[in-house]
Amino acid sequence: MTKKIAVLPGDGIGSEIIEQAVRVLRTVAPSLEINEAPVGGTAYDLHGHPLPPSTLKLAQESNAILFGAVGDWKYDKLPREHRPEQAILGLRKALGLFANLRPAVLYPELANASSLKPEIVSGLDILILRELTGDIYFGTPRGIRTASDGPYAGSKEGFDTMRYAEPEIRRIAHIGFQSAQKRQGKLCSVDKANVLETSQLWRDIVIDVSKEYPDVALSHMYVDNAAMQLVRAPREFDVIVTGNLFGDILSDEAAMLTGSIGMLPSASLNASGQGLYEPSHGSAPDIAGKGIANPLATILSAAMMLRYSLDSASLADKIEQAVQKVLQQGYRTADIYEPGTTKVGTAAMGDAVLKA
Amino acid sequence: MTKKIAVLPGDGIGSEIIEQAVRVLRTVAPSLEINEAPVGGTAYDLHGHPLPPSTLKLAQESNAILFGAVGDWKYDKLPREHRPEQAILGLRKALGLFANLRPAVLYPELANASSLKPEIVSGLDILILRELTGDIYFGTPRGIRTASDGPYAGSKEGFDTMRYAEPEIRRIAHIGFQSAQKRQGKLCSVDKANVLETSQLWRDIVIDVSKEYPDVALSHMYVDNAAMQLVRAPREFDVIVTGNLFGDILSDEAAMLTGSIGMLPSASLNASGQGLYEPSHGSAPDIAGKGIANPLATILSAAMMLRYSLDSASLADKIEQAVQKVLQQGYRTADIYEPGTTKVGTAAMGDAVLKA
Ligand SMILES: CC(C)[C@H](C(=O)O)[C@@H](O)C(=O)O
Ligand SMILES: CC(C)[C@H](C(=O)O)[C@@H](O)C(=O)O
Repeated sequence: MTKKIAVLPGDGIGSEIIEQAVRVLRTVAPSLEINEAPVGGTAYDLHGHPLPPSTLKLAQESNAILFGAVGDWKYDKLPREHRPEQAILGLRKALGLFANLRPAVLYPELANASSLKPEIVSGLDILILRELTGDIYFGTPRGIRTASDGPYAGSKEGFDTMRYAEPEIRRIAHIGFQSAQKRQGKLCSVDKANVLETSQLWRDIVIDVSKEYPDVALSHMYVDNAAMQLVRAPREFDVIVTGNLFGDILSDEAAMLTGSIGMLPSASLNASGQGLYEPSHGSAPDIAGKGIANPLATILSAAMMLRYSLDSASLADKIEQAVQKVLQQGYRTADIYEPGTTKVGTAAMGDAVLKA
Repeated sequence: MTKKIAVLPGDGIGSEIIEQAVRVLRTVAPSLEINEAPVGGTAYDLHGHPLPPSTLKLAQESNAILFGAVGDWKYDKLPREHRPEQAILGLRKALGLFANLRPAVLYPELANASSLKPEIVSGLDILILRELTGDIYFGTPRGIRTASDGPYAGSKEGFDTMRYAEPEIRRIAHIGFQSAQKRQGKLCSVDKANVLETSQLWRDIVIDVSKEYPDVALSHMYVDNAAMQLVRAPREFDVIVTGNLFGDILSDEAAMLTGSIGMLPSASLNASGQGLYEPSHGSAPDIAGKGIANPLATILSAAMMLRYSLDSASLADKIEQAVQKVLQQGYRTADIYEPGTTKVGTAAMGDAVLKA
């Protein structure tokens, strides 16, 4: 049966980087059915909503979604429900994409790009597994109201609810242990169990699930300490599993350790293997339309898509090897350029990958 | 009138590092009335509670509190309300210590200690201002219950409430702007306003308060981006103001950028100038009793105490200059030792500071 993928370029550099990834996909997997739809600010401009029903429907009917990036300063003044980010939150929720896999890998060729000393980061290869459909992102009640009790009764107050139910913790924990089994066998669960009730339950359930994985070494770390240890000795980690909010912060911190966030793909999966694949970087409106953005994170996201949602691990390997090769050949976009290498634009980088 | 200070050594290395700071205080400010009391696990062992009423009373009746550190693995199995950390949360709440000042400063002599490249961190001097009595740390309702609605009805769920009232945001914002005025004039407010209602109110109020400080350049950053920018280009920051939870994470990350968390003091102040002063590092039970812990963060905390709660800025300067001098003289405890310097223990470091 023909596999269908939805391509959602979004805003800023989204369409430029997506274009290169689609070229690569059409070359390695010509039988894929590829449909494109607007999302984010672009969709708001066209249809008055960052995630129009037609785009959501296309996403739901596809085996996988290749997502560019959303966001632009010009939408900053919109009420929150119309802002571009709502598209990504809406897709996660509607499709139940609860497992966000964000590798932080430092390619040997790009070791200099990191702000950390080479002896601290070279060879870095960690996987952050972030729960993506629960936590304070979606918890209710939430809002802005007049406080009715306590020392600030009568004042305006903002409030949100952090929450995790046992089955939510259990399913992401399983993915964490299974990911660790395929890697170095180490899983670090990050929480704030010394303060939060949600974290206390999180920790209890992770410990319970660990009994099914005696071959995985489980550790627990408070989120403040994890933010420190990522800076101090990031290679001590193998897989980190954590909630939506802490994962948002730590996965970005970990990505930046590499100094080359333009290289990092991500996958967000649901229980039936459907997934949304996107680069870890943002929409970079400041360089949009200039043809200089780095398409490699998006191309590597397409590779993850082939591996996790389209059952084509060998094609994924092919793409990943091609990316390694262009780095070895010295091709660099502006964000990862250093003297002695060959600076290329977005399309030329796509050409190089196709050739490789 | 005689100023009173409460000394709470706590657990692990707490008593060793506090001892040196007290020696320094007795030397530069002999008229201070100094009273000691147990806190943390030590207090639990003695009185069955990490913050016994007698300790809390002493703290309340003092102009300032010099705090060592709390926590030890042996208390990890206690129910949360008896664990050592509750002492520090209890003191913050009972004394209304809402403003936590955490400088992240890299001493030129210790530039090598950082895991970041010298060209990224040398000269680092940022101040993280963390709100300390609100947010999800103290918000109610919270607990573990059986979910009564939604897709997980019937399951166990953990939940916590993030909340900030307008007056809480307003007063910490004022301190943020005033701190920036005394420094480089730049204030970065960190939130997650693209997702959280609490953050939306936070941002609105900070913007409102900014009108009173036209001389301060205010910027806003999402917490995930802040975690990245701290790694990428930490010197771009001057003062960061943020809520309790994000501040917990970012202040530890920022401290670790220096590679020498054994050097970093902190202050937690209330509206009447009373303050709790403590090193940014923890109780390090693994090296407790060995006489090798670095007392400088605690000594520098005593200096902050003189400056902020005891109206003795010139004595504070004296202590800070003495610490700089011992670094220049090459004295190092094990945590900051490098070949070519003189390795000393806790007491010898105290001696060196006293002499300087
Ligand atoms: C855009 C924003 C809502 C989103 C998040 O916080 O999840 C982004 O930061 C991410 O990590 O994908
Ligand atoms: C011990 C813990 C409750 C505390 C906190 O989270 O505030 C600590 O991490 C800190 O930063 O002082």
